[in-house]
Amino acid sequence: MTKAWDDLLPRLRDLTDLLSTSALLSWDQQVLMPRATTGHRARMMATIDSLIHERLTDPGLGDLISTLEADDSLDDAQKASVRLLRRDHDKAVKVPLALVRELSELQGRCFRSWAEARAASDFEILQPDLERMFELKKQQADAVGYEGERYDALLDDFEPGLTARDVEKLFRDLVTELKPLADAILQRSGDRPEFMSRPFDDRGQEDFSQWLIGVMKFDTSRGRLDQSPHPFTSRMGADDVRQTTRILTNDFVSNLRSTMHETGHALYEQGLPVEWADLPIGNTRSLGLHESQSRIWEIQVGTGRAFLGFLFDEMKSRWPEQLGDVSADDFYRGVNHPHRSPIRVEADEVTYNLHVALRAELELALFREELAVADLPEAWDAGMEKHVGIRPESQADGVLQDIHWSGGLIGYFPTYTMGTLYAAAFYERAVADLGDPSDDLARGHVGKVLDWLRTNLHSYGSTEEPRAAGERIIGGPLTVTPFIEHIRTKYAAIYGALD
Amino acid sequence: MTKAWDDLLPRLRDLTDLLSTSALLSWDQQVLMPRATTGHRARMMATIDSLIHERLTDPGLGDLISTLEADDSLDDAQKASVRLLRRDHDKAVKVPLALVRELSELQGRCFRSWAEARAASDFEILQPDLERMFELKKQQADAVGYEGERYDALLDDFEPGLTARDVEKLFRDLVTELKPLADAILQRSGDRPEFMSRPFDDRGQEDFSQWLIGVMKFDTSRGRLDQSPHPFTSRMGADDVRQTTRILTNDFVSNLRSTMHETGHALYEQGLPVEWADLPIGNTRSLGLHESQSRIWEIQVGTGRAFLGFLFDEMKSRWPEQLGDVSADDFYRGVNHPHRSPIRVEADEVTYNLHVALRAELELALFREELAVADLPEAWDAGMEKHVGIRPESQADGVLQDIHWSGGLIGYFPTYTMGTLYAAAFYERAVADLGDPSDDLARGHVGKVLDWLRTNLHSYGSTEEPRAAGERIIGGPLTVTPFIEHIRTKYAAIYGALD
Repeated sequence: MTKAWDDLLPRLRDLTDLLSTSALLSWDQQVLMPRATTGHRARMMATIDSLIHERLTDPGLGDLISTLEADDSLDDAQKASVRLLRRDHDKAVKVPLALVRELSELQGRCFRSWAEARAASDFEILQPDLERMFELKKQQADAVGYEGERYDALLDDFEPGLTARDVEKLFRDLVTELKPLADAILQRSGDRPEFMSRPFDDRGQEDFSQWLIGVMKFDTSRGRLDQSPHPFTSRMGADDVRQTTRILTNDFVSNLRSTMHETGHALYEQGLPVEWADLPIGNTRSLGLHESQSRIWEIQVGTGRAFLGFLFDEMKSRWPEQLGDVSADDFYRGVNHPHRSPIRVEADEVTYNLHVALRAELELALFREELAVADLPEAWDAGMEKHVGIRPESQADGVLQDIHWSGGLIGYFPTYTMGTLYAAAFYERAVADLGDPSDDLARGHVGKVLDWLRTNLHSYGSTEEPRAAGERIIGGPLTVTPFIEHIRTKYAAIYGALD
Repeated sequence: MTKAWDDLLPRLRDLTDLLSTSALLSWDQQVLMPRATTGHRARMMATIDSLIHERLTDPGLGDLISTLEADDSLDDAQKASVRLLRRDHDKAVKVPLALVRELSELQGRCFRSWAEARAASDFEILQPDLERMFELKKQQADAVGYEGERYDALLDDFEPGLTARDVEKLFRDLVTELKPLADAILQRSGDRPEFMSRPFDDRGQEDFSQWLIGVMKFDTSRGRLDQSPHPFTSRMGADDVRQTTRILTNDFVSNLRSTMHETGHALYEQGLPVEWADLPIGNTRSLGLHESQSRIWEIQVGTGRAFLGFLFDEMKSRWPEQLGDVSADDFYRGVNHPHRSPIRVEADEVTYNLHVALRAELELALFREELAVADLPEAWDAGMEKHVGIRPESQADGVLQDIHWSGGLIGYFPTYTMGTLYAAAFYERAVADLGDPSDDLARGHVGKVLDWLRTNLHSYGSTEEPRAAGERIIGGPLTVTPFIEHIRTKYAAIYGALD
């Protein structure tokens, strides 16, 4: 063990502690925090985040990184850690502190004007702050630098190595294949079954979701499930992974899907090597790979016929009045009912990625200055009509529905679709390796699938570049084909031939 | 506004943010945290606490304090803040960092050996660590310095200005009066009524305690109530005050008393001037005054006949099966049933302070080196016999029951009794000012009592020394008389003449 590495370790532990603290402050803010303390909490988070920035930009850290880059005696895990740390350090150093601060303040302001604009369904309330946000994100991209184009610098924060060109190709391929398929399915899917909006008591749903995460092998000695308006998963330590779900009395499927989705994220976090807890490689770096885990558990496993049949039996015994007159097949068709919705988070798996395609298209056009923020509402409505075949009735249900851009998350949306595509491709490989796991899943046994994911993805941490990890698992480049085939096969089985 | 004060403010805000963060880490540890992350959480807390220590001992802060001490233009609130800050800075500077670290490590170790010793009911498992704890606390006292004797330096952390001599006099006076009175009451109190151990469903109790804190005017937009094995209240910001309660199915009174007790603490925190949130005077400094607020709401208000009658009606409507055959008077006698218990936290108001007297006596003797840690178990049992008239059946239920000493909290116990005595004295003054509030309390209206406490204590923050604050409110020095009179009057009304 070299001296420089020994000197690095306490710095990494300190950084981990501060990052974990920041995660707890944020988790608490979204789950429990009393509302009056919003302003103070934002200040607390800024205080911790500026300590993290201070640690990351410390010249002493830069010197240690340089020393270690020249050190051949490091093992692979150490080398990979130094490589990631170099990137974090350089990125942090390159962005001027004044810009970091202005972005952080603007985020708070923009969040408030977004909330106000959404409540009033009036984009103009948000427009000036959102214009400033795109300006500052361009400044940030320029400060960090890029090889191809500006947007690449933003993508890199969420999916290292992904470029604007990749995004364009992926969505072009996807839309070409998915749009006609989705139209064919939506022509046949009819109205949402009535039982889907029957009341399921909140405490019963809470108990059910706690049971469900146990079935899915989420380890509650190393994590928790709570509730929040917007479900999410975060990690405040290798042994402290927290997920949330959303419970709606008259829409049981919201809790069902959220729980399976977030458990997918949470199982990934719990599957990372604990011995790397303080190293950069012990954390996840790719939102695309992360989303592949949530989608595989929500879609390929969770709402597949086998596992859903198992869940249906359990739910029927918990809610005999609500589900007594429903068959397992009706339940399967209901949970998987495709429909045109103006709202992304309410979209089914058939239409979901068309919603994302619109957002990717728009943010790329905005960033390339081919579209002005002022023209966004019109472009949104036209794009929704084109992609999803529906026109939002209000700006609140249209251009103002997502918080991402107001929060400075530009370059983030494409990773949702990356995740969907990875999930389908990975699951195809898993089935090829394991054989069809349906018999197991029909009995609620998820162990084999989980072990496969642990072995093939989780155990690697962030030792590889995301694209390389994806290609290793798939055995070739990521394409839209496995996802398209998944949709075609699944819905042809439900609605008959789709051509 | 002077320049030095302007320079001080960002330091105070930073310190507040770190202290609030530390409080959240600790709250979460006791309430929610998954158990496997215990080690990492301890490390996170040490990281934040060492930042706090760094800030407090910063020579730049010392210089600002000196400048401000010489500045006559400061207003009273600023002067009081500088005075408190001077103390915090000097104390932090005087204790060597090596001692701070060893104490912090020893606390963790001592906590574990205490837990082990308690589980095995074997004091010898704890003894070596506890011996070291007393050694280090003596070193700490010597480093900080004192005027009278070493123990004064420890008391000062919990009750600024209180001395060993005060403690001795207070407990001597108390035991002299209370012991014969308690014996007379206990002779008459008989067995605990059967209905007290009937099952009250946990979720019903949870709903009830949420209702109760509303009645008591705890503001849930600025705080929360949760559950934890050991109820406590803490503050992670002026608008984020959190309390917990303990719910036991077969002992409804545990939740009832804990909720009222902790709400008393929490109302004090919520009553501090919000405009002082970042100043030293905007926080509480005296555990005795703090405990006066919890006791007043638990004892004088909460388990008095008027308010308890109001609560009884509500509980009876929520639990008709459990309370249908119980009268309001039976309920009052049951909740206020005195009995000899070996366990402090299960003790009633009549015997509680005799438990505390024993602890004060023992820790003073240990600190004065009149008693060795090795002889503690024997001294404990003898003292329990003398004060409470009962011999613990095991060390777990005896000398090992409290965590305080193992956590380094030496000089803390006396503040429990200070709180009890203050509560009785303050309430006497409140009744003199307001008239008997029983009619209001019988209808669940606590506003007048709360306003009186806000005006006479909460609104002062920590601008005064604790003793001065107490004497201002009482109109003279603190004595045991109001408490003794409270007990005598209350229990004579229940059991008849006590002589």
